[in-house]
Amino acid sequence: MGISNRVHEQMGRGSWIRQMFEAGIALRQRLGEERVFDLSLGNPVVEPPQEFRAELLRLAQHPVPGMHRYMPNAGYPETRAAVARQLAAETGLPYQASDVVMTCGAGGGLNVVLRAIMDPGDEVIVLAPYFVEYLFYVENHGGVPVVVDCDEAFNPDLAILERSITKRTRAVLLNSPNNPTGVVYSAKLLDSLAELLRRKAHQHGKAIYILSDEPYRKLVYDGLKYPFVQHRYTPTVVATSHSKDLALPGERIGYVAVNPELPDRGELVDAIVFCNRVLGFVNAPALMQHLVRSLQGVTVDVADYQRKRDFLYARLVGMGYQMTKPQGAFYMFPKSPMPDDRAFVERLLNHNVLVVPGVGFGKPGYFRISYCLDDRVLEGALDGFRAVARELGLTS
Amino acid sequence: MGISNRVHEQMGRGSWIRQMFEAGIALRQRLGEERVFDLSLGNPVVEPPQEFRAELLRLAQHPVPGMHRYMPNAGYPETRAAVARQLAAETGLPYQASDVVMTCGAGGGLNVVLRAIMDPGDEVIVLAPYFVEYLFYVENHGGVPVVVDCDEAFNPDLAILERSITKRTRAVLLNSPNNPTGVVYSAKLLDSLAELLRRKAHQHGKAIYILSDEPYRKLVYDGLKYPFVQHRYTPTVVATSHSKDLALPGERIGYVAVNPELPDRGELVDAIVFCNRVLGFVNAPALMQHLVRSLQGVTVDVADYQRKRDFLYARLVGMGYQMTKPQGAFYMFPKSPMPDDRAFVERLLNHNVLVVPGVGFGKPGYFRISYCLDDRVLEGALDGFRAVARELGLTS
Repeated sequence: MGISNRVHEQMGRGSWIRQMFEAGIALRQRLGEERVFDLSLGNPVVEPPQEFRAELLRLAQHPVPGMHRYMPNAGYPETRAAVARQLAAETGLPYQASDVVMTCGAGGGLNVVLRAIMDPGDEVIVLAPYFVEYLFYVENHGGVPVVVDCDEAFNPDLAILERSITKRTRAVLLNSPNNPTGVVYSAKLLDSLAELLRRKAHQHGKAIYILSDEPYRKLVYDGLKYPFVQHRYTPTVVATSHSKDLALPGERIGYVAVNPELPDRGELVDAIVFCNRVLGFVNAPALMQHLVRSLQGVTVDVADYQRKRDFLYARLVGMGYQMTKPQGAFYMFPKSPMPDDRAFVERLLNHNVLVVPGVGFGKPGYFRISYCLDDRVLEGALDGFRAVARELGLTS
Repeated sequence: MGISNRVHEQMGRGSWIRQMFEAGIALRQRLGEERVFDLSLGNPVVEPPQEFRAELLRLAQHPVPGMHRYMPNAGYPETRAAVARQLAAETGLPYQASDVVMTCGAGGGLNVVLRAIMDPGDEVIVLAPYFVEYLFYVENHGGVPVVVDCDEAFNPDLAILERSITKRTRAVLLNSPNNPTGVVYSAKLLDSLAELLRRKAHQHGKAIYILSDEPYRKLVYDGLKYPFVQHRYTPTVVATSHSKDLALPGERIGYVAVNPELPDRGELVDAIVFCNRVLGFVNAPALMQHLVRSLQGVTVDVADYQRKRDFLYARLVGMGYQMTKPQGAFYMFPKSPMPDDRAFVERLLNHNVLVVPGVGFGKPGYFRISYCLDDRVLEGALDGFRAVARELGLTS
């Protein structure tokens, strides 16, 4: 075989998100853009904020000498400092530039952190439903993902989680606001989780990290104040990106930040920077580092996302679909009205509506809707949802 | 320990290039920019070509809707097609868009290809002196780098290379024009290498890839015509970037291209795209993909690099330093006039001149000069080289 057996096996597991993305492209080519309602990918259609465009134009008109060169692998000191200032303002914790490493998106950030902390055979707890890439990210570096099911409200079940922790547990991966459920973990839940992890780490005589993947941190609704985990648990590393809050997913610009209250954080940051280099990322893209430096306080229009959520939630519940009302991100994770979520997704596809089956997130029996889309697409998709609801005899 | 034992061990091996880079920053802070002559890093001081700046300005003034969004993991079809057209024009081979995957620089490209072809324990032959990252890139994915020494002229010693091939050999990593030596492999050498690899692959009943890392492909001097390896050896994958030819090293934009004459290339490309996704690169930065699409035929001023090479080569040889005259890239790799190359580098450092010891490339007894620098720096460094030559009693 011309390719790795290991990769061949992983490819067989595929990604439902990407499969639906490709199916959407094919369907659009066949039917035309206007007749396809693709709610499958978290690819925001909103454009970056005006401040981003102005800053890009300013830099293009007045280039800074050397602005496309290599910089230290951790990123520009000024960009790291700007991120640290923003984190300090948001959290009240004393973040400094030296606690921040600029990365190629959150995906790059998660990989460099996992590489930095794991030895082969180490276990990382992943909560289901999960962003499917997490399993690969852990496996990339010889780690073992240990999947723990959430409860009915999509909160981690701490009793199951406790039983899943072993001497090899190196980290728990959190994602709040959550993809695919839109759930935001409460302060109370995080307090309990932190207490549990402290107890288990003490019992096993080994640090257990929380790796908090927060690309949707700024997308929370109903005036909710985002509960930060790092106030509650010292060995916390945050990974995030500007893919969603500045609508730049294709640009691969993000960062990881080590808790400024972690005593041996210097060693950890050094290891993260080293991994950023040797995994081939080298550094986060230079121009984007220049741009996001002055945009740390800027966010896309969150009220608009909330409006889209409210619109879609009300309509779908009105048709008889059942779901937990999402508090953040731009996803919904309703129950599949058919036992087989893949069959349901196929049925929607017959009405030119694309969503992702729950099996793609390790949670069969549900499906994911992404609503970071033009109102036209959300409105257009309603016909398909309504038709299938009727076919299946749903009632609200 | 808060970090991975494996990473801790790797960090101990460090990078002399990065160490000198950091030493240079510290020295500049102490003495001021004007008094430090840092020839340690391949970080071109030339700015990107005017065509790049014009295109960036055009896109900033007239943004294309959605130009910062996700695209297929392989990159924009239009960008892949533009790269394929340029490759076809340069090589005469029938490259198509589907043979090209846009990557986060050549470093990202090498990692996704190595991941795609290797299983744990597979061996990859690396020629010494080598770009030190190669060892990490192979180890990242559970591979074993097998180091093969070059001959006195820095060409691979095919007799040693033949003896180093085993049943586990998966690839030979080539880098021409070479970092650190500036050597360009001749057509004749590549013919012999191709024949050897075909014979060994047949003997072991297993494909052996050539992975050709070509970031300096367009930087060749004296009217030399670059000898392409893919004409000579079908299982060749090229990795390159626009870090050097468009002077964009910080932007992490490059690509890999699978030989269009490889029969099962579709499977290989699929695996490369998959690895680009799951290793956390996701895709090459979007804006840079838009920019390099129309710049495939553009290159920085190669004549200027040749002038710098001629200037420095003549002066250093005149002082008694011994070296092979480089034919490409922007490095020289002279013999260390002291048996201990690290001691020599320290001695130069006393004169505020920074170079990298050969030990950093697996070749003690030499040192690397990078000359992609302002003439002021090259001229200023001559005093230090001259002083050390006198101290050591060199004569031309």
